[in-house]
Amino acid sequence: MPEELTVKAAPVVPGVRYAPAVWANPRPALPDDNATIAAEDVDAEVERFRAATTAVSERLAARAGRAEGSAAEVLLATSKLTLDRGWHRAAVKEIKARVPAEVGVARAIDKFVEMFRAAGGVMAERTTDLEDIRDRVIAHLRGEEEPGLPTVDGPCVLLAEDLAPADTATLDPALFTAMVTVLGGPTSHTAIIARQLGVPCCVAAGAALREIPAGEPLLVDCITGVVRTGADPERAREAVAEDLRLAEFTAAWRGPGRTAEGEPVQLLANVGDGNAARAAAEGVAEGVGLFRTELCFLSAATEPSVENQAEIYAKVLRAFPEDKVVIRTLDAGSDKPLAFANLADEENPALGVRGLRISRSSSGLMERQLDAIARAREIAERAPEAPIWVMAPMVATLEEATWFAGLCRDRGLTAGAMIEIPAAALMSHDLMKVLDFVSIGTNDLTQYAMAADRLSPALAYLTDPWQPAVLRLIDMTCRSGADMDVPVGVCGEAAADPALACVLVGMGVASLSAAATALPGVGAQLGVVTREQCRAAARLALDAPDAEAARTAVRELLAEAAAD
Amino acid sequence: MPEELTVKAAPVVPGVRYAPAVWANPRPALPDDNATIAAEDVDAEVERFRAATTAVSERLAARAGRAEGSAAEVLLATSKLTLDRGWHRAAVKEIKARVPAEVGVARAIDKFVEMFRAAGGVMAERTTDLEDIRDRVIAHLRGEEEPGLPTVDGPCVLLAEDLAPADTATLDPALFTAMVTVLGGPTSHTAIIARQLGVPCCVAAGAALREIPAGEPLLVDCITGVVRTGADPERAREAVAEDLRLAEFTAAWRGPGRTAEGEPVQLLANVGDGNAARAAAEGVAEGVGLFRTELCFLSAATEPSVENQAEIYAKVLRAFPEDKVVIRTLDAGSDKPLAFANLADEENPALGVRGLRISRSSSGLMERQLDAIARAREIAERAPEAPIWVMAPMVATLEEATWFAGLCRDRGLTAGAMIEIPAAALMSHDLMKVLDFVSIGTNDLTQYAMAADRLSPALAYLTDPWQPAVLRLIDMTCRSGADMDVPVGVCGEAAADPALACVLVGMGVASLSAAATALPGVGAQLGVVTREQCRAAARLALDAPDAEAARTAVRELLAEAAAD
Repeated sequence: MPEELTVKAAPVVPGVRYAPAVWANPRPALPDDNATIAAEDVDAEVERFRAATTAVSERLAARAGRAEGSAAEVLLATSKLTLDRGWHRAAVKEIKARVPAEVGVARAIDKFVEMFRAAGGVMAERTTDLEDIRDRVIAHLRGEEEPGLPTVDGPCVLLAEDLAPADTATLDPALFTAMVTVLGGPTSHTAIIARQLGVPCCVAAGAALREIPAGEPLLVDCITGVVRTGADPERAREAVAEDLRLAEFTAAWRGPGRTAEGEPVQLLANVGDGNAARAAAEGVAEGVGLFRTELCFLSAATEPSVENQAEIYAKVLRAFPEDKVVIRTLDAGSDKPLAFANLADEENPALGVRGLRISRSSSGLMERQLDAIARAREIAERAPEAPIWVMAPMVATLEEATWFAGLCRDRGLTAGAMIEIPAAALMSHDLMKVLDFVSIGTNDLTQYAMAADRLSPALAYLTDPWQPAVLRLIDMTCRSGADMDVPVGVCGEAAADPALACVLVGMGVASLSAAATALPGVGAQLGVVTREQCRAAARLALDAPDAEAARTAVRELLAEAAAD
Repeated sequence: MPEELTVKAAPVVPGVRYAPAVWANPRPALPDDNATIAAEDVDAEVERFRAATTAVSERLAARAGRAEGSAAEVLLATSKLTLDRGWHRAAVKEIKARVPAEVGVARAIDKFVEMFRAAGGVMAERTTDLEDIRDRVIAHLRGEEEPGLPTVDGPCVLLAEDLAPADTATLDPALFTAMVTVLGGPTSHTAIIARQLGVPCCVAAGAALREIPAGEPLLVDCITGVVRTGADPERAREAVAEDLRLAEFTAAWRGPGRTAEGEPVQLLANVGDGNAARAAAEGVAEGVGLFRTELCFLSAATEPSVENQAEIYAKVLRAFPEDKVVIRTLDAGSDKPLAFANLADEENPALGVRGLRISRSSSGLMERQLDAIARAREIAERAPEAPIWVMAPMVATLEEATWFAGLCRDRGLTAGAMIEIPAAALMSHDLMKVLDFVSIGTNDLTQYAMAADRLSPALAYLTDPWQPAVLRLIDMTCRSGADMDVPVGVCGEAAADPALACVLVGMGVASLSAAATALPGVGAQLGVVTREQCRAAARLALDAPDAEAARTAVRELLAEAAAD
């Protein structure tokens, strides 16, 4: 009988699984930077470098050939980047200065990572890929197994420090039935990929996870965030079966969103472009609740013209010709910089000149974007009664809301604001005097309410939308909405959590917007609870002393409701 | 008749003044980095560099000789830094690479500024001094006037882009009767110095200020934040006289703090060490409301021993042998790094692992600091009834408060928390179940509630403690305090603003802690209003649509109260 081990982690994709643990191959240790080689070995070392990068690139390309869709794209891009001439030149130069190939690789990649990070934006997102390539090439040079997914011969639970895009892109959900990582937060790369693949996942388990040996049967509850060894096998299998029954029920759910008594709750999709909107329209989404318009700005050297913007927006409008589409105006900042806006570096980009604040200082940027949205309505030949709602990010004051609403009204657009700053929730009653709707962005609202960076793994225990303080800000906003007869939506990660969705509906939220893949789970759960049960869930969560107590109390209530 | 110009700015030190405008000498333009010199000119250029730095250093030393106290220290330190061998070596090396002395100076200083900034903490604070030295030396090399304070022959209003420590250290308040800057925020260097000197000051006036020509008579109202030319001279002089009468009344005020009907409001001092505490004890301070304990940690290579810490804390306790002393435990983070704690760089230090969060991850740091505080009580031979209150910074959850309170109680210490994160205000009722007191830190609370960096000049319009959203969080905390019978204090900049102090007292705040120099102004104002008038002021501020409306409404109410 093995010693029992229980590890707490942050649940990010729900599900219960039972299978032996397997550890992802570790990242190789970085080479000793002081190592040197003899002058006569340089050519052989360059040759070794070429051979290793070619082998790694070919292996990634082969995996791309077996994968599909965006997974294949990610792997192919990584395969190509492995042979990129820019960093190869830098690595060969290092080796010619008489260092071993491993050191040359590490130095060259580190240099490019630094450059990419300094460039920010889309470039900065490639640094994880570069570091992954570095680790693969170094492992290959040493004859070690490539880091990342191990070869397994049956279902298992994947444990890892953290996962790279290339690891997760080809992960087979039938083999890797669940994932638990030491690091990461609810918005980390691992969490996002797990959500897309539909693999139950917990993150931020901390160092305690490292105690779990490979091969140990593991019961992973990614609803409560409890990972444990030594579970009774029969009971564990029952818990998994119960979870799978629920998943089947979810898969069969078809919409539209409503509570058990049939009261409607709009289920909308978060999208970034026309492709994503079309994919969402094929599922259960009843419209778009958050269209992020950054894409056409972030990669542009100059501000896209009104006509160019309008073409891009029209693609999303056409995907839902008659349904509601909520467009969020440009949300950039010094961490998501605009090449054409010349934003200064900031000590704390998350607390800086971003969102609506940029548009106010860059004269005319907001006006032109709203012109483009009005123009997109014409191009898409949209019926006058098909709703287009426009909202601004980072609204903090009544004065900002009034300014934005005025610009929208001038163009015949319905005006709203993101409620993602505590001040906006606290002032929501006032803001609603000038706005037609609001949408709560729970990720940023949580970050600011808890004063904890949403991307910091060390603070994942704070950046949890179940924190009662965050729920109180949401509740305050809903009360304002009820009082002022202004619809309140939610478009952060909170809307993707079926249990939390019930709490939000209980507070009075009228629409939930999330990744299209998360909507069936939310809809199926809402369909089996009454509005009164949602209200009871909201009260339990609001009165809980902490996030975990809130989550547990609501889950128990929902389990009882399901048993009725 | 000159055209009338009105400029709005953020008032940071109250007072009304009328005098001709004078502009601080501008910072010199930075030299053309591509300029080169002939090889035969290198020695002469090095000589020019030596002569210029010597002249600038001597001028600063001479000014130090005419100044007193901390002003003399600032000037002497800057004088020495002007001759520092480290950057001289770097500058000479640049000049020997055949660039003009100005370019050598600019490059060498920029290099050191970057290094200092990377080092963070106390080092980073010296970068303003380095840049000031660079500008002075470059101006001298060009034969231009040194930047900063101009020579004036009578009272004037000083206008500037922003001010450096060396500018303000010797500023004569009799000549420079008021200051207005284009940049800066309520917590900028200019604001802090103006407050210490007692010179009426407005900051963040924006580019409009640059339209005001030198010599123009200027009416500066640093209560409402209105700066204007073309005022009627007689009326302007009346306004100034009225303000001076008020100042005289303030100067004559002796404490203790109480409202017109005699209800006590504790007025406490913010201090950083024993010297500041002793200075505060000579004034009207009734104790210490915020003892920042960072000083002995930030410059230490290893964690100071319990006994060393205790000696430092005892110095502050001895300054107020019988009065309340509120000690805040270590508030460090990746922007105020600890040499011995090895904190990782963070994307957003203000939202990172800081305050209490550090102490929880660095095992035993908090326990040893609390041991030292308990030990300091013995060393200072403090009477058992003399209150020592201890509070933790950056508390966000009940769980954190419970942990901290437990550690305090184990050592017989009174336990509290800073309320400086929106979540802490929202959860204040719960936190007070385990805490003996709370103190609201309005600077950080404003920063997080508005999601706006308190040091960002571009966002000064948001980081204003008069923002109704911030006031609502304070009010929520006060209501919790009344309900739970837990005293609520305020220790941010808000406590230094006499009008805002009335609002806070009206909400139920029991003690106000600010720079010792600000206390008479606050006490004198409180002494002429009743608690009921304070309550009315609080209601007006809470219901105002924005910060300016809140400020104006309360000022009008207080003016009426004074006229009664």
